[in-house]
Amino acid sequence: MPKYKLLIEYDGTPFCGWQRQHQLPSVQQAIENAIFNFSGDKITIVAAGRTDTGVHATGQVAHVELQQSWRGEKVRDAINAHLTLAAQPITILSATRVNDQFNARFSAIKRHYHYRILNRRAPPALNKHRVWWVPKKLDEKAMHIAAQKLVGYHDFTTFRASQCQAKSPLRHLDRLDVVRTEDMIEIYASAPSFLHNQIRSFVGSLKEVGTGRWDAEDVQNALEARDRTRCGSVAPALGLYLTQVDYPKDDFEIEE
Amino acid sequence: MPKYKLLIEYDGTPFCGWQRQHQLPSVQQAIENAIFNFSGDKITIVAAGRTDTGVHATGQVAHVELQQSWRGEKVRDAINAHLTLAAQPITILSATRVNDQFNARFSAIKRHYHYRILNRRAPPALNKHRVWWVPKKLDEKAMHIAAQKLVGYHDFTTFRASQCQAKSPLRHLDRLDVVRTEDMIEIYASAPSFLHNQIRSFVGSLKEVGTGRWDAEDVQNALEARDRTRCGSVAPALGLYLTQVDYPKDDFEIEE
Repeated sequence: MPKYKLLIEYDGTPFCGWQRQHQLPSVQQAIENAIFNFSGDKITIVAAGRTDTGVHATGQVAHVELQQSWRGEKVRDAINAHLTLAAQPITILSATRVNDQFNARFSAIKRHYHYRILNRRAPPALNKHRVWWVPKKLDEKAMHIAAQKLVGYHDFTTFRASQCQAKSPLRHLDRLDVVRTEDMIEIYASAPSFLHNQIRSFVGSLKEVGTGRWDAEDVQNALEARDRTRCGSVAPALGLYLTQVDYPKDDFEIEE
Repeated sequence: MPKYKLLIEYDGTPFCGWQRQHQLPSVQQAIENAIFNFSGDKITIVAAGRTDTGVHATGQVAHVELQQSWRGEKVRDAINAHLTLAAQPITILSATRVNDQFNARFSAIKRHYHYRILNRRAPPALNKHRVWWVPKKLDEKAMHIAAQKLVGYHDFTTFRASQCQAKSPLRHLDRLDVVRTEDMIEIYASAPSFLHNQIRSFVGSLKEVGTGRWDAEDVQNALEARDRTRCGSVAPALGLYLTQVDYPKDDFEIEE
Protein backbone atom coordinates (compact mmCIF):
# COMPACT_ATOMS: atom_id res chain seq x y z
CA MET A 1 0.00 0.00 0.00
CA PRO A 2 1.25 3.54 -0.77
CA LYS A 3 2.97 5.03 2.26
CA TYR A 4 3.23 8.74 3.05
CA LYS A 5 5.40 10.78 5.37
CA LEU A 6 3.46 13.67 6.90
CA LEU A 7 5.10 16.81 8.30
CA ILE A 8 2.73 18.30 10.86
CA GLU A 9 2.22 21.56 12.79
CA TYR A 10 -0.25 21.80 15.69
CA ASP A 11 -1.37 23.86 18.62
CA GLY A 12 -1.32 21.33 21.48
CA THR A 13 -3.61 23.37 23.75
CA PRO A 14 -6.95 21.60 23.16
CA PHE A 15 -5.53 18.06 22.93
CA CYS A 16 -4.76 15.31 25.43
CA GLY A 17 -1.53 14.95 23.47
CA TRP A 18 -0.57 13.16 20.28
CA GLN A 19 -1.78 9.70 21.19
CA ARG A 20 -5.36 8.52 20.73
CA GLN A 21 -7.16 8.03 24.04
CA HIS A 22 -10.72 6.91 24.61
CA GLN A 23 -13.15 9.87 24.71
CA LEU A 24 -10.38 12.50 24.73
CA PRO A 25 -9.45 14.76 21.82
CA SER A 26 -6.03 13.78 20.48
CA VAL A 27 -3.96 15.04 17.55
CA GLN A 28 -3.70 11.48 16.20
CA GLN A 29 -7.48 10.96 16.23
CA ALA A 30 -8.14 14.33 14.58
CA ILE A 31 -5.79 13.50 11.70
CA GLU A 32 -7.08 9.93 11.38
CA ASN A 33 -10.63 11.31 11.16
CA ALA A 34 -9.60 13.81 8.47
CA ILE A 35 -7.94 11.00 6.46
CA PHE A 36 -11.04 8.82 6.80
CA ASN A 37 -13.24 11.70 5.64
CA PHE A 38 -11.34 12.17 2.42
CA SER A 39 -10.24 8.63 1.59
CA GLY A 40 -12.65 6.35 3.45
CA ASP A 41 -9.61 4.54 4.86
CA LYS A 42 -9.72 3.53 8.53
CA ILE A 43 -6.06 3.80 9.32
CA THR A 44 -3.65 4.24 12.22
CA ILE A 45 -0.93 6.85 11.92
CA VAL A 46 2.41 6.50 13.69
CA ALA A 47 4.35 9.56 14.90
CA ALA A 48 8.01 10.21 15.63
CA GLY A 49 7.25 11.68 19.05
CA ARG A 50 4.18 11.11 21.20
CA THR A 51 3.86 14.65 22.55
CA ASP A 52 2.08 15.22 25.88
CA THR A 53 -1.04 17.26 26.63
CA GLY A 54 -0.51 20.90 25.67
CA VAL A 55 2.81 20.34 23.85
CA HIS A 56 2.97 21.97 20.40
CA ALA A 57 4.65 20.91 17.18
CA THR A 58 6.01 22.76 14.17
CA GLY A 59 7.75 19.70 12.74
CA GLN A 60 6.12 16.49 13.99
CA VAL A 61 6.48 13.58 11.53
CA ALA A 62 4.08 10.68 11.07
CA HIS A 63 3.55 7.94 8.53
CA VAL A 64 0.36 6.53 7.09
CA GLU A 65 -0.55 3.86 4.55
CA LEU A 66 -3.48 4.54 2.22
CA GLN A 67 -5.48 2.16 0.01
CA GLN A 68 -5.22 4.30 -3.10
CA SER A 69 -2.24 6.02 -4.64
CA TRP A 70 -2.65 9.81 -4.53
CA ARG A 71 -0.14 12.54 -5.24
CA GLY A 72 1.49 13.86 -2.05
CA GLU A 73 0.16 17.38 -2.62
CA LYS A 74 -3.34 15.99 -2.97
CA VAL A 75 -3.01 14.08 0.32
CA ARG A 76 -1.76 17.23 2.09
CA ASP A 77 -4.51 19.48 0.73
CA ALA A 78 -7.29 16.95 1.31
CA ILE A 79 -6.33 16.29 4.94
CA ASN A 80 -6.01 20.06 5.53
CA ALA A 81 -9.42 20.73 4.02
CA HIS A 82 -11.02 18.27 6.45
CA LEU A 83 -8.99 19.54 9.43
CA THR A 84 -10.19 23.07 8.62
CA LEU A 85 -13.80 21.88 8.30
CA ALA A 86 -13.48 20.26 11.73
CA ALA A 87 -11.88 23.48 13.12
CA GLN A 88 -8.84 21.54 14.35
CA PRO A 89 -5.68 23.60 15.02
CA ILE A 90 -3.57 21.11 13.07
CA THR A 91 -2.06 21.48 9.62
CA ILE A 92 -0.17 19.14 7.29
CA LEU A 93 2.87 21.04 6.01
CA SER A 94 3.75 18.35 3.49
CA ALA A 95 2.92 14.78 2.50
CA THR A 96 5.55 12.83 0.56
CA ARG A 97 5.59 9.26 -0.80
CA VAL A 98 8.04 7.00 1.02
CA ASN A 99 8.93 3.35 0.63
CA ASP A 100 7.81 0.49 2.90
CA GLN A 101 10.94 0.68 5.03
CA PHE A 102 10.08 4.13 6.36
CA ASN A 103 8.79 4.23 9.93
CA ALA A 104 8.26 7.72 11.40
CA ARG A 105 9.18 6.49 14.86
CA PHE A 106 11.84 3.82 14.34
CA SER A 107 13.63 5.35 11.35
CA ALA A 108 14.15 8.69 13.14
CA ILE A 109 17.77 9.37 14.03
CA LYS A 110 17.39 12.72 15.79
CA ARG A 111 14.69 14.79 17.43
CA HIS A 112 14.77 18.55 18.01
CA TYR A 113 12.69 20.41 20.57
CA HIS A 114 12.38 24.08 21.45
CA TYR A 115 11.19 25.48 24.78
CA ARG A 116 10.11 29.12 25.25
CA ILE A 117 10.13 31.05 28.52
CA LEU A 118 8.64 34.56 28.54
CA ASN A 119 10.77 36.27 31.18
CA ARG A 120 9.20 39.62 32.08
CA ARG A 121 6.91 41.09 34.74
CA ALA A 122 3.92 41.43 32.39
CA PRO A 123 2.00 38.22 31.61
CA PRO A 124 1.68 37.16 27.96
CA ALA A 125 -1.21 38.57 25.94
CA LEU A 126 -0.38 37.51 22.37
CA ASN A 127 1.55 34.36 23.40
CA LYS A 128 -0.87 32.88 25.90
CA HIS A 129 -0.63 29.04 25.83
CA ARG A 130 2.55 29.39 23.72
CA VAL A 131 5.16 30.19 26.39
CA TRP A 132 5.92 29.54 30.04
CA TRP A 133 5.60 32.87 31.82
CA VAL A 134 8.29 33.37 34.49
CA PRO A 135 8.05 36.92 35.92
CA LYS A 136 11.18 36.64 38.07
CA LYS A 137 14.35 37.72 36.22
CA LEU A 138 16.36 34.69 35.03
CA ASP A 139 20.10 34.60 34.34
CA GLU A 140 20.16 32.85 30.97
CA LYS A 141 23.95 32.74 30.84
CA ALA A 142 24.10 30.75 34.09
CA MET A 143 21.34 28.50 32.72
CA HIS A 144 23.31 27.84 29.55
CA ILE A 145 26.48 26.97 31.47
CA ALA A 146 24.58 24.60 33.76
CA ALA A 147 22.84 23.02 30.74
CA GLN A 148 26.21 21.91 29.37
CA LYS A 149 26.54 19.53 32.36
CA LEU A 150 23.66 17.55 30.87
CA VAL A 151 25.06 17.23 27.35
CA GLY A 152 26.60 13.86 26.52
CA TYR A 153 25.83 10.23 27.37
CA HIS A 154 24.26 9.90 30.81
CA ASP A 155 21.87 8.00 33.01
CA PHE A 156 18.97 10.49 33.06
CA THR A 157 16.93 8.83 35.83
CA THR A 158 16.70 12.20 37.63
CA PHE A 159 15.18 13.83 34.57
CA ARG A 160 12.51 11.39 33.46
CA ALA A 161 8.92 10.95 34.58
CA SER A 162 8.38 8.16 37.11
CA GLN A 163 5.88 6.63 34.65
CA CYS A 164 8.42 6.68 31.77
CA GLN A 165 8.17 3.38 29.92
CA ALA A 166 11.63 3.37 28.30
CA LYS A 167 13.65 0.27 29.26
CA SER A 168 16.82 2.24 29.87
CA PRO A 169 17.42 5.70 31.39
CA LEU A 170 20.65 5.96 29.38
CA ARG A 171 20.50 8.53 26.59
CA HIS A 172 22.80 10.73 24.57
CA LEU A 173 21.96 14.44 24.67
CA ASP A 174 23.51 16.27 21.69
CA ARG A 175 22.55 19.83 22.48
CA LEU A 176 20.97 21.91 25.23
CA ASP A 177 21.39 25.62 24.46
CA VAL A 178 19.86 28.55 26.31
CA VAL A 179 19.64 31.87 24.47
CA ARG A 180 17.83 35.11 25.32
CA THR A 181 16.20 37.43 22.74
CA GLU A 182 14.86 40.42 24.69
CA ASP A 183 12.16 39.02 27.03
CA MET A 184 12.16 35.54 25.52
CA ILE A 185 14.46 32.77 26.69
CA GLU A 186 14.77 30.08 24.04
CA ILE A 187 16.02 26.60 24.91
CA TYR A 188 17.06 24.22 22.13
CA ALA A 189 17.36 20.49 22.81
CA SER A 190 18.49 17.80 20.35
CA ALA A 191 19.02 14.06 20.84
CA PRO A 192 18.49 10.75 19.04
CA SER A 193 15.60 10.20 21.46
CA PHE A 194 14.24 11.61 24.70
CA LEU A 195 12.78 10.07 27.84
CA HIS A 196 9.28 10.97 29.03
CA ASN A 197 9.24 14.56 30.40
CA GLN A 198 13.00 14.80 29.92
CA ILE A 199 13.07 18.30 28.39
CA ARG A 200 10.45 19.71 30.76
CA SER A 201 12.49 18.25 33.64
CA PHE A 202 15.64 19.91 32.27
CA VAL A 203 13.87 23.25 31.90
CA GLY A 204 12.39 23.09 35.41
CA SER A 205 15.85 22.49 36.86
CA LEU A 206 17.49 25.16 34.69
CA LYS A 207 14.91 27.65 35.91
CA GLU A 208 16.24 27.02 39.45
CA VAL A 209 19.66 27.99 38.11
CA GLY A 210 18.18 31.08 36.43
CA THR A 211 16.75 32.39 39.69
CA GLY A 212 20.01 31.64 41.53
CA ARG A 213 18.55 28.93 43.77
CA TRP A 214 20.77 26.33 42.04
CA ASP A 215 24.14 26.55 40.34
CA ALA A 216 25.75 24.38 37.66
CA GLU A 217 27.16 22.06 40.32
CA ASP A 218 23.67 21.41 41.70
CA VAL A 219 22.59 20.33 38.23
CA GLN A 220 25.63 18.06 37.97
CA ASN A 221 24.88 16.57 41.40
CA ALA A 222 21.21 16.06 40.55
CA LEU A 223 22.23 14.21 37.36
CA GLU A 224 24.73 12.02 39.20
CA ALA A 225 22.26 11.20 41.98
CA ARG A 226 20.06 9.30 39.46
CA ASP A 227 17.14 10.10 41.72
CA ARG A 228 13.85 11.50 40.39
CA THR A 229 13.22 13.42 43.62
CA ARG A 230 16.36 15.51 42.95
CA CYS A 231 14.83 17.08 39.82
CA GLY A 232 13.50 20.66 39.88
CA SER A 233 9.75 21.13 39.28
CA VAL A 234 8.80 19.93 35.81
CA ALA A 235 8.21 22.94 33.51
CA PRO A 236 4.69 23.25 32.02
CA ALA A 237 3.88 21.70 28.65
CA LEU A 238 2.66 24.93 26.99
CA GLY A 239 6.21 26.23 26.29
CA LEU A 240 7.40 23.06 24.51
CA TYR A 241 7.52 22.54 20.73
CA LEU A 242 8.62 19.50 18.71
CA THR A 243 10.34 21.34 15.86
CA GLN A 244 12.16 18.78 13.73
CA VAL A 245 12.79 15.05 13.26
CA ASP A 246 15.77 13.85 11.25
CA TYR A 247 15.96 10.71 9.09
CA PRO A 248 18.84 9.22 7.10
CA LYS A 249 19.02 11.33 3.95
CA ASP A 250 16.86 10.38 0.96
CA ASP A 251 16.76 6.70 1.85
CA PHE A 252 12.99 6.54 1.91
CA GLU A 253 11.74 9.03 -0.64
CA ILE A 254 9.93 7.79 -3.75
CA GLU A 255 9.56 9.77 -6.96
CA GLU A 256 5.94 10.47 -7.78
CA MET B 1 -3.14 64.67 38.90
CA PRO B 2 -0.34 62.09 38.41
CA LYS B 3 -0.13 61.07 34.76
CA TYR B 4 1.15 57.72 33.46
CA LYS B 5 2.31 56.48 30.10
CA LEU B 6 1.24 52.87 29.52
CA LEU B 7 2.97 50.53 27.06
CA ILE B 8 0.45 47.88 26.03
CA GLU B 9 0.36 44.49 24.27
CA TYR B 10 -2.91 42.87 23.19
CA ASP B 11 -4.48 40.18 21.09
CA GLY B 12 -7.04 42.11 19.03
CA THR B 13 -9.12 39.03 18.12
CA PRO B 14 -11.97 39.34 20.66
CA PHE B 15 -12.25 43.14 20.54
CA CYS B 16 -14.18 45.63 18.39
CA GLY B 17 -10.89 47.53 18.32
CA TRP B 18 -9.19 49.96 20.67
CA GLN B 19 -12.00 52.45 21.02
CA ARG B 20 -14.85 52.10 23.50
CA GLN B 21 -18.18 51.38 21.81
CA HIS B 22 -21.55 50.86 23.41
CA GLN B 23 -22.17 47.17 24.27
CA LEU B 24 -19.08 45.94 22.40
CA PRO B 25 -15.87 44.66 24.02
CA SER B 26 -13.05 47.12 23.40
CA VAL B 27 -9.43 47.21 24.54
CA GLN B 28 -9.96 50.70 25.98
CA GLN B 29 -12.95 49.62 28.08
CA ALA B 30 -11.15 46.51 29.37
CA ILE B 31 -8.20 48.59 30.58
CA GLU B 32 -10.46 51.32 32.03
CA ASN B 33 -12.36 48.65 33.95
CA ALA B 34 -9.13 47.17 35.29
CA ILE B 35 -7.97 50.63 36.42
CA PHE B 36 -11.31 51.29 38.11
CA ASN B 37 -11.13 47.94 39.89
CA PHE B 38 -7.78 48.70 41.48
CA SER B 39 -7.98 52.47 42.02
CA GLY B 40 -11.67 53.30 42.09
CA ASP B 41 -10.97 55.99 39.48
CA LYS B 42 -13.46 56.39 36.63
CA ILE B 43 -11.10 57.56 33.95
CA THR B 44 -10.74 57.77 30.19
CA ILE B 45 -7.52 56.58 28.62
CA VAL B 46 -6.17 58.04 25.39
CA ALA B 47 -4.15 55.91 22.93
CA ALA B 48 -1.59 56.74 20.25
CA GLY B 49 -3.41 54.66 17.64
CA ARG B 50 -7.06 53.62 17.60
CA THR B 51 -6.57 50.13 16.18
CA ASP B 52 -9.46 48.46 14.32
CA THR B 53 -11.32 45.24 15.13
CA GLY B 54 -8.91 42.30 15.17
CA VAL B 55 -5.72 44.40 14.95
CA HIS B 56 -3.05 43.44 17.51
CA ALA B 57 -0.49 45.50 19.41
CA THR B 58 2.88 44.77 20.92
CA GLY B 59 3.68 48.43 21.57
CA GLN B 60 0.50 50.51 21.84
CA VAL B 61 0.90 53.59 24.05
CA ALA B 62 -1.81 55.29 26.12
CA HIS B 63 -1.92 57.88 28.87
CA VAL B 64 -4.06 58.02 31.97
CA GLU B 65 -4.43 60.37 34.93
CA LEU B 66 -5.02 58.84 38.36
CA GLN B 67 -6.27 60.45 41.59
CA GLN B 68 -3.52 59.04 43.74
CA SER B 69 0.21 58.91 43.18
CA TRP B 70 1.42 55.31 42.82
CA ARG B 71 4.74 53.96 41.69
CA GLY B 72 4.73 53.04 37.97
CA GLU B 73 5.52 49.37 38.72
CA LYS B 74 2.57 49.23 41.09
CA VAL B 75 0.24 50.67 38.43
CA ARG B 76 1.49 48.13 35.87
CA ASP B 77 1.15 45.13 38.21
CA ALA B 78 -2.25 46.20 39.57
CA ILE B 79 -3.78 46.71 36.12
CA ASN B 80 -2.33 43.38 34.97
CA ALA B 81 -3.73 41.57 38.01
CA HIS B 82 -7.23 42.82 37.16
CA LEU B 83 -6.85 42.12 33.43
CA THR B 84 -5.83 38.55 34.31
CA LEU B 85 -8.80 38.18 36.67
CA ALA B 86 -11.10 39.33 33.86
CA ALA B 87 -9.34 36.90 31.42
CA GLN B 88 -8.59 39.74 29.00
CA PRO B 89 -5.78 39.09 26.47
CA ILE B 90 -4.22 42.47 27.26
CA THR B 91 -1.07 43.20 29.26
CA ILE B 92 0.60 46.39 30.46
CA LEU B 93 4.31 46.08 29.62
CA SER B 94 5.24 49.20 31.58
CA ALA B 95 3.69 52.21 33.32
CA THR B 96 5.88 55.30 33.76
CA ARG B 97 5.19 58.70 35.32
CA VAL B 98 5.07 61.51 32.77
CA ASN B 99 4.44 65.24 33.09
CA ASP B 100 1.21 67.04 32.19
CA GLN B 101 2.42 67.91 28.70
CA PHE B 102 2.48 64.26 27.61
CA ASN B 103 -0.36 63.18 25.35
CA ALA B 104 -0.14 59.63 23.96
CA ARG B 105 -1.86 60.69 20.75
CA PHE B 106 -0.70 64.24 20.08
CA SER B 107 2.86 63.99 21.39
CA ALA B 108 3.63 60.97 19.18
CA ILE B 109 6.08 61.72 16.40
CA LYS B 110 6.22 58.31 14.69
CA ARG B 111 4.18 55.12 14.55
CA HIS B 112 5.49 51.68 13.53
CA TYR B 113 3.34 48.82 12.29
CA HIS B 114 4.13 45.28 11.25
CA TYR B 115 2.03 43.08 8.95
CA ARG B 116 2.49 39.30 8.69
CA ILE B 117 1.52 37.14 5.71
CA LEU B 118 1.85 33.35 6.06
CA ASN B 119 2.68 32.34 2.49
CA ARG B 120 2.43 28.57 2.16
CA ARG B 121 -0.06 25.94 1.02
CA ALA B 122 -0.85 24.72 4.54
CA PRO B 123 -3.15 26.92 6.63
CA PRO B 124 -1.83 28.22 9.98
CA ALA B 125 -2.27 26.02 13.05
CA LEU B 126 -0.15 27.79 15.69
CA ASN B 127 -0.61 31.28 14.19
CA LYS B 128 -4.35 31.28 13.64
CA HIS B 129 -5.72 34.87 14.05
CA ARG B 130 -2.11 36.14 14.01
CA VAL B 131 -1.32 36.14 10.29
CA TRP B 132 -3.02 36.57 6.93
CA TRP B 133 -2.83 33.20 5.20
CA VAL B 134 -2.12 33.52 1.45
CA PRO B 135 -1.62 30.02 -0.05
CA LYS B 136 -0.60 31.30 -3.51
CA LYS B 137 3.15 31.87 -3.83
CA LEU B 138 4.03 35.57 -3.55
CA ASP B 139 7.10 37.28 -4.98
CA GLU B 140 8.26 39.32 -1.99
CA LYS B 141 11.06 41.00 -3.94
CA ALA B 142 8.59 42.44 -6.46
CA MET B 143 6.38 43.50 -3.53
CA HIS B 144 9.29 45.32 -1.89
CA ILE B 145 10.20 47.16 -5.09
CA ALA B 146 6.60 48.24 -5.64
CA ALA B 147 6.32 49.32 -1.99
CA GLN B 148 9.07 51.90 -2.54
CA LYS B 149 6.70 53.78 -4.91
CA LEU B 150 4.60 54.59 -1.84
CA VAL B 151 7.40 55.89 0.37
CA GLY B 152 7.60 59.69 0.65
CA TYR B 153 5.08 62.54 0.84
CA HIS B 154 1.93 61.75 -1.12
CA ASP B 155 -1.81 62.20 -1.41
CA PHE B 156 -2.93 58.75 -0.20
CA THR B 157 -6.60 59.05 -1.16
CA THR B 158 -6.38 55.69 -2.97
CA PHE B 159 -5.15 53.97 0.17
CA ARG B 160 -7.50 55.23 2.86
CA ALA B 161 -10.92 54.02 3.94
CA SER B 162 -13.86 55.96 2.51
CA GLN B 163 -14.96 56.65 6.10
CA CYS B 164 -11.51 58.01 7.10
CA GLN B 165 -12.04 61.14 9.18
CA ALA B 166 -8.63 62.79 8.66
CA LYS B 167 -8.95 66.28 7.19
CA SER B 168 -6.15 65.73 4.68
CA PRO B 169 -5.12 62.66 2.67
CA LEU B 170 -1.55 64.01 2.54
CA ARG B 171 0.90 61.99 4.59
CA HIS B 172 4.60 61.21 4.73
CA LEU B 173 5.45 57.48 4.63
CA ASP B 174 8.94 56.85 6.02
CA ARG B 175 9.27 53.15 5.43
CA LEU B 176 7.48 50.26 3.73
CA ASP B 177 9.73 47.20 3.67
CA VAL B 178 8.81 43.69 2.58
CA VAL B 179 11.02 40.82 3.80
CA ARG B 180 10.56 37.05 3.66
CA THR B 181 11.72 34.64 6.39
CA GLU B 182 10.90 31.14 5.13
CA ASP B 183 7.09 30.98 4.83
CA MET B 184 6.47 34.32 6.52
CA ILE B 185 6.38 37.61 4.65
CA GLU B 186 6.94 40.50 7.04
CA ILE B 187 5.95 44.04 6.08
CA TYR B 188 7.25 46.99 8.13
CA ALA B 189 5.57 50.39 7.88
CA SER B 190 6.63 53.60 9.66
CA ALA B 191 5.23 57.12 9.45
CA PRO B 192 4.45 60.12 11.67
CA SER B 193 0.81 59.11 11.31
CA PHE B 194 -1.37 56.86 9.17
CA LEU B 195 -4.78 57.25 7.57
CA HIS B 196 -7.62 54.85 8.35
CA ASN B 197 -6.94 51.42 6.77
CA GLN B 198 -3.81 52.80 5.08
CA ILE B 199 -1.50 49.87 5.87
CA ARG B 200 -4.13 47.22 5.15
CA SER B 201 -4.79 49.02 1.83
CA PHE B 202 -1.07 48.98 1.05
CA VAL B 203 -0.80 45.28 1.88
CA GLY B 204 -3.85 44.37 -0.20
CA SER B 205 -2.35 46.15 -3.21
CA LEU B 206 1.13 44.69 -2.64
CA LYS B 207 -0.40 41.22 -2.57
CA GLU B 208 -1.61 41.89 -6.15
CA VAL B 209 2.01 42.58 -7.02
CA GLY B 210 3.13 39.41 -5.23
CA THR B 211 0.84 37.22 -7.33
CA GLY B 212 1.91 38.98 -10.53
CA ARG B 213 -1.48 40.56 -11.25
CA TRP B 214 0.02 44.03 -10.68
CA ASP B 215 3.50 45.44 -11.12
CA ALA B 216 5.24 48.42 -9.50
CA GLU B 217 3.87 50.75 -12.16
CA ASP B 218 0.29 49.72 -11.33
CA VAL B 219 0.96 50.70 -7.71
CA GLN B 220 2.37 54.02 -8.86
CA ASN B 221 -0.65 54.61 -11.11
CA ALA B 222 -3.07 53.68 -8.34
CA LEU B 223 -1.36 56.17 -6.01
CA GLU B 224 -1.42 58.95 -8.62
CA ALA B 225 -5.08 58.31 -9.48
CA ARG B 226 -6.11 59.47 -5.96
CA ASP B 227 -9.15 57.24 -6.34
CA ARG B 228 -10.25 54.79 -3.63
CA THR B 229 -11.67 52.39 -6.22
CA ARG B 230 -8.16 51.88 -7.64
CA CYS B 231 -6.92 50.23 -4.41
CA GLY B 232 -6.46 46.45 -4.20
CA SER B 233 -8.69 44.56 -1.73
CA VAL B 234 -7.99 45.69 1.82
CA ALA B 235 -5.94 43.04 3.67
CA PRO B 236 -7.58 41.49 6.76
CA ALA B 237 -6.97 42.99 10.21
CA LEU B 238 -5.64 39.80 11.82
CA GLY B 239 -2.13 40.17 10.32
CA LEU B 240 -1.59 43.75 11.56
CA TYR B 241 0.34 44.76 14.70
CA LEU B 242 1.00 48.21 16.16
CA THR B 243 4.56 47.62 17.35
CA GLN B 244 5.99 50.97 18.46
CA VAL B 245 5.18 54.64 18.99
CA ASP B 246 7.97 57.20 19.21
CA TYR B 247 8.00 60.40 21.29
CA PRO B 248 10.57 63.18 21.58
CA LYS B 249 13.31 61.75 23.82
CA ASP B 250 12.99 62.09 27.59
CA ASP B 251 10.90 65.26 27.39
CA PHE B 252 8.03 63.84 29.41
CA GLU B 253 9.54 61.39 31.88
CA ILE B 254 9.39 62.17 35.60
CA GLU B 255 11.69 60.62 38.21
CA GLU B 256 9.78 58.59 40.76
